[in-house]
Amino acid sequence: MPEFNIKALNSELRSALQAKIDQKTKPLGALGRLEDLALQIGLIQQSLTLTLVNPTVLVFAADHGLADAGVSAYPQSVTAQMVVNFLNGGAAINVFTSQHGLELFIVDAGVNADLPSHPQLISAKIAKSTRNCLTEPAMTPMQMLQAINTGANLVQQQHNRACNCIGFGEMGIGNTSSAALIMHKLTGIGLEQCAGLGTGLNQQQFNHKLSVLQQVSAQHLVNTPLDALSHVGGFEIAMMVGAFLRAAECRMVTIVDGFIASAALLVASRIKPEVLDYCIFSHVSDEQGHALLLREFNANALLQLNMRLGEGSGIAVCYPLIQSAVNFLTQMASFSDAGVAEKLT
Amino acid sequence: MPEFNIKALNSELRSALQAKIDQKTKPLGALGRLEDLALQIGLIQQSLTLTLVNPTVLVFAADHGLADAGVSAYPQSVTAQMVVNFLNGGAAINVFTSQHGLELFIVDAGVNADLPSHPQLISAKIAKSTRNCLTEPAMTPMQMLQAINTGANLVQQQHNRACNCIGFGEMGIGNTSSAALIMHKLTGIGLEQCAGLGTGLNQQQFNHKLSVLQQVSAQHLVNTPLDALSHVGGFEIAMMVGAFLRAAECRMVTIVDGFIASAALLVASRIKPEVLDYCIFSHVSDEQGHALLLREFNANALLQLNMRLGEGSGIAVCYPLIQSAVNFLTQMASFSDAGVAEKLT
Repeated sequence: MPEFNIKALNSELRSALQAKIDQKTKPLGALGRLEDLALQIGLIQQSLTLTLVNPTVLVFAADHGLADAGVSAYPQSVTAQMVVNFLNGGAAINVFTSQHGLELFIVDAGVNADLPSHPQLISAKIAKSTRNCLTEPAMTPMQMLQAINTGANLVQQQHNRACNCIGFGEMGIGNTSSAALIMHKLTGIGLEQCAGLGTGLNQQQFNHKLSVLQQVSAQHLVNTPLDALSHVGGFEIAMMVGAFLRAAECRMVTIVDGFIASAALLVASRIKPEVLDYCIFSHVSDEQGHALLLREFNANALLQLNMRLGEGSGIAVCYPLIQSAVNFLTQMASFSDAGVAEKLT
Repeated sequence: MPEFNIKALNSELRSALQAKIDQKTKPLGALGRLEDLALQIGLIQQSLTLTLVNPTVLVFAADHGLADAGVSAYPQSVTAQMVVNFLNGGAAINVFTSQHGLELFIVDAGVNADLPSHPQLISAKIAKSTRNCLTEPAMTPMQMLQAINTGANLVQQQHNRACNCIGFGEMGIGNTSSAALIMHKLTGIGLEQCAGLGTGLNQQQFNHKLSVLQQVSAQHLVNTPLDALSHVGGFEIAMMVGAFLRAAECRMVTIVDGFIASAALLVASRIKPEVLDYCIFSHVSDEQGHALLLREFNANALLQLNMRLGEGSGIAVCYPLIQSAVNFLTQMASFSDAGVAEKLT
């Protein structure tokens, strides 16, 4: 396992940032959570002059052997089909990243198909799908480390081209099952609360999924976060673990998407709790386990729009709020600039 | 009172819109409230091809005679100072409208100062401040009608230049008091629940505000929504009443800001309930009365960011979500376009 040198945010600049926020021409606190965001971003960037450079979404795609057990409403082939859709610009994440000027790359972490080469596709396939964790560990420890390293390296590449704001999306038929299993193993919360309807199971299909997950869980003894990751995780999830850790090490503003990304962050935060200081939680997914998982982080997500799409869609939709936080701090006039009277006392 | 010919949305296109939404490459319903928005905008525009043209924020500014009674944490002069700040581009609403490419105009509805001429300033002053409703009606019925007409005409002008998406902000020291009084008179909800801390009163100052509002309320017998508006309203609020009504008549997508704008909408909706069909509720303000007022509309606002700034800031911050709703419907590939397999049955 690579070393990640992640520093907890120090509060040195807190009072200077707060003073700058409070001198803007608005009642104290009147921009609510945008003010909290400005403060957090200032502490991440260790600066009073915030800036978002080359904001980027990396979408990690991979297949899951467990899909064979009928845990999803869609066939496994949809993972590859959706990757092609991403490359053709037709998916929700294309629309929303394009709307906000975010860069988008798709990472083939382990799709069960040969994919065409494309300028937005990063080929980093660990294998064509994980194994079926109903019968064996989803991946070997070696594959897991390779995936973590790859995720970290891909973030490092973005950091090297000056990107300082990043988020991680995913695509993988079956991956709400993987995320639910990780959540269950690491938090002890019952599987019936961790699992959800995914892409849209009916009650009968959900009962089947839950029973499969219970069988899987019973088969895997897990002692560490990395055990959970290799036994019941996915390649896209393992890459996101490395990605979160390196993003924090590089002091990047890190935007957290929905349930799957949060399961990856759970693993990362059990390794390095300080990773959470760098995270902005974009939205609460409608996938059942997500609200509970956010509580594990003491996180209060910015948006609650009943979305449950993945792909990084929550990141992209939330991005303008982050930009608004930066913009008000850098662009608004202060009371003295504007000659506006301050509060009566 | 001018006539407003507002049609309730008819559901003729509902199933065609829903089918178009459901054929996009995403699980059914996975874009949550963005899907509801796309449906509503389609019904407003009576089209399957949504478009937002020249989206615009009008900020109505006016002073309140009641400010003399010490109901605000800021002196009355701040209204004019903030208008100048708007014209100089230094306020939050400037930053956020500029971020999202929204047009911004400031309407002098009744600021107690002579304001400089400026391309973004629309001079429509009814009077220099309303009268103090602690001792007399805030405005005459004639002034109220003039304000309603002006608001309607300003929206008509925007509609005439093809604008089809509009929102109304406000600036006016003392106007949370006016809004609370209107809400109390029209809903019967106790003043202690309608009134809030405004720009930041402490508990003692709030107690004083509440006692002033109780005295005001006792002085004004109100039989109709327009009575409430003329007795305890403000010029900016009256203009917004006309603005909301004309926007609905013109079938414009109408974005509702916070507490003050919602009080104007309350008056408008008591005159023409159909106005609500055209409204998108941007956010829940931290001003105490707003959450309760939204319940009167059965509205579920898009954002809850603890903002309480006014100026139309909620509109601007929420706008990208509305744009995302339009964009996914118009830009995403369908399952058949993209060759993605649909759900297993």
